[in-house]
Amino acid sequence: MGYIELNKKSFFNNLDYFSNICGREKLSIALKDNAYGHGILEVASMCKEYGVEHTFVKNIKEANLIKKFDFKSILVLYDIPKKYNKNIIISINSIKDIKKIPKNSKVELKIDTGMNRNGIYKSQIDLALELIEKYNLILNGVFTHFCCADEDNGITLKQMKLFDNIVFDIKSKTDKNFRVHCANSHGVFKVDMKKYDLARIGIGAYGYLDRDETRFLKPILKLYAKKITTKKVKKDETIGYGSDAFIVKKDMIVSNYDIGYGDGFLRVGDIKQARVSTKNKKILGRVSMDSFTIESKKNKICVFKNVNSLAKIHNTINYEILTTLSPYLKRYIKG
Amino acid sequence: MGYIELNKKSFFNNLDYFSNICGREKLSIALKDNAYGHGILEVASMCKEYGVEHTFVKNIKEANLIKKFDFKSILVLYDIPKKYNKNIIISINSIKDIKKIPKNSKVELKIDTGMNRNGIYKSQIDLALELIEKYNLILNGVFTHFCCADEDNGITLKQMKLFDNIVFDIKSKTDKNFRVHCANSHGVFKVDMKKYDLARIGIGAYGYLDRDETRFLKPILKLYAKKITTKKVKKDETIGYGSDAFIVKKDMIVSNYDIGYGDGFLRVGDIKQARVSTKNKKILGRVSMDSFTIESKKNKICVFKNVNSLAKIHNTINYEILTTLSPYLKRYIKG
Repeated sequence: MGYIELNKKSFFNNLDYFSNICGREKLSIALKDNAYGHGILEVASMCKEYGVEHTFVKNIKEANLIKKFDFKSILVLYDIPKKYNKNIIISINSIKDIKKIPKNSKVELKIDTGMNRNGIYKSQIDLALELIEKYNLILNGVFTHFCCADEDNGITLKQMKLFDNIVFDIKSKTDKNFRVHCANSHGVFKVDMKKYDLARIGIGAYGYLDRDETRFLKPILKLYAKKITTKKVKKDETIGYGSDAFIVKKDMIVSNYDIGYGDGFLRVGDIKQARVSTKNKKILGRVSMDSFTIESKKNKICVFKNVNSLAKIHNTINYEILTTLSPYLKRYIKG
Repeated sequence: MGYIELNKKSFFNNLDYFSNICGREKLSIALKDNAYGHGILEVASMCKEYGVEHTFVKNIKEANLIKKFDFKSILVLYDIPKKYNKNIIISINSIKDIKKIPKNSKVELKIDTGMNRNGIYKSQIDLALELIEKYNLILNGVFTHFCCADEDNGITLKQMKLFDNIVFDIKSKTDKNFRVHCANSHGVFKVDMKKYDLARIGIGAYGYLDRDETRFLKPILKLYAKKITTKKVKKDETIGYGSDAFIVKKDMIVSNYDIGYGDGFLRVGDIKQARVSTKNKKILGRVSMDSFTIESKKNKICVFKNVNSLAKIHNTINYEILTTLSPYLKRYIKG
């Protein structure tokens, strides 16, 4: 069957890169959304081996999956457990969250500094601190998320100033120690990392970050497909679904490979522009749920090792191509 | 957290529809690709309750997942186990497959009748039968797949005639009994189901089939999102990622909901055209990996109950919107 290969050396290369900027002890790696499609267990195990201490996930289910790796912290961004769970830190995304959180839980206050997505505003700080106290929660951290750290404008700086101001305010109102973080992969290039306790690294760890400084990052995921059959097809025959999707122009040898849109290899848009990595071959006809066809006899081909060109074809971002890969695909770690 | 609701009544309605055409005992339901994204365990349990006896899946992993339901047959389309497995039937997609199949296995010979994807050709029949005998395999069935059963032309009829001819040939060469099947959801309207032992129903069972006759089929899957936060946003503020993705035109109350492209809710293409089912609200700004925003205060909203309009926006087919839904989303059966 088709499978995913994860390159440990490349992953460590990427982690080294960010460690050099902020120090290994400040790395917090995104394991959410199945580690951006890479495989949460596989990436967690590589993180552990590297010495990553902090991680963040989407929900309790993901947190429970990685409990066994015993990270120093697992921040859960969008979920509140029904019972106290000592292994996790819960993000407070709104004032209403606070009373739902089991007492004695560690929490981090998410500050909305202009993204208008989730988090609390400056004007709600006093109320939030009061409720955290009232409901016996432990303030473990204060953080924000940048909306536009990949853009070349002053917005991130403005968000950061507002955030610093709020953190200063909170520090003046509590004698508790808490960690402070704001930067994502792009953000570490825009803020002074000495001022903050963590860098939340997502797409950069996976080798994709469209910046001059990061040309040494390496994508770590390759998608492979295995051959189902080889066929000699003749002029005027068709391949796959539809009588008009691909009409053979000359006799040729083609093979059908076992990755399809059911595996998360998107077929939306004009997939006919798509080429696989192996010999840059064009995909012939439509991608099926479980397979596609190219002109080749090889037993195994690399569908992609870098998803940027596919992201362009699909009019989307590399994140989506990666996260959409089915969790059911087998993952192997190389190296 | 966001979740999927499966409507059992609608599913049984769809199964009734196909039972009326071909008889309940001939139904074989597609559980492959996580039951077209609906959830393989949940759909298998509903199939069992309805009295479905036959199923088909993509690989051994899926077959093992549904073993406990004790269906009369599980046909594995694209995978060969290393050891004999009494619970499954293995599809022969190419001559080369045959020697890899563990002896005593039940096999079904897939005939390529013009799709040029996988399966063996008419000219290879004698060799295939010889090898099945040589490697001690049990010929359980002969089948084909139509490339164009959804199109209004004579191609399916041509494929069917070729298939009938091959089946007749095989019957003359062996005294073994085997089952014969060719029709998918569209195909049952094009062939005489009395002649065949199974109808392989996929998208039709899930309520999507673009034919006049099937207007009584009902989609069975609804995707729900839960609120993370509610915000009052002001004129000229932005929402979500990007400084230009959504600029607020007038003060409004918006909420952020916990479904994103990490859950398989595609963001490719011009998602800004997309509307959720609840009150037909527009999605504001970009869909994030874990959330999106609409103008609403509701605690829960239905993202979709019918994916046809999303399929149009994404320039794809309803199959893809469904199969891309993350297996990690919780599924509930209603009814």
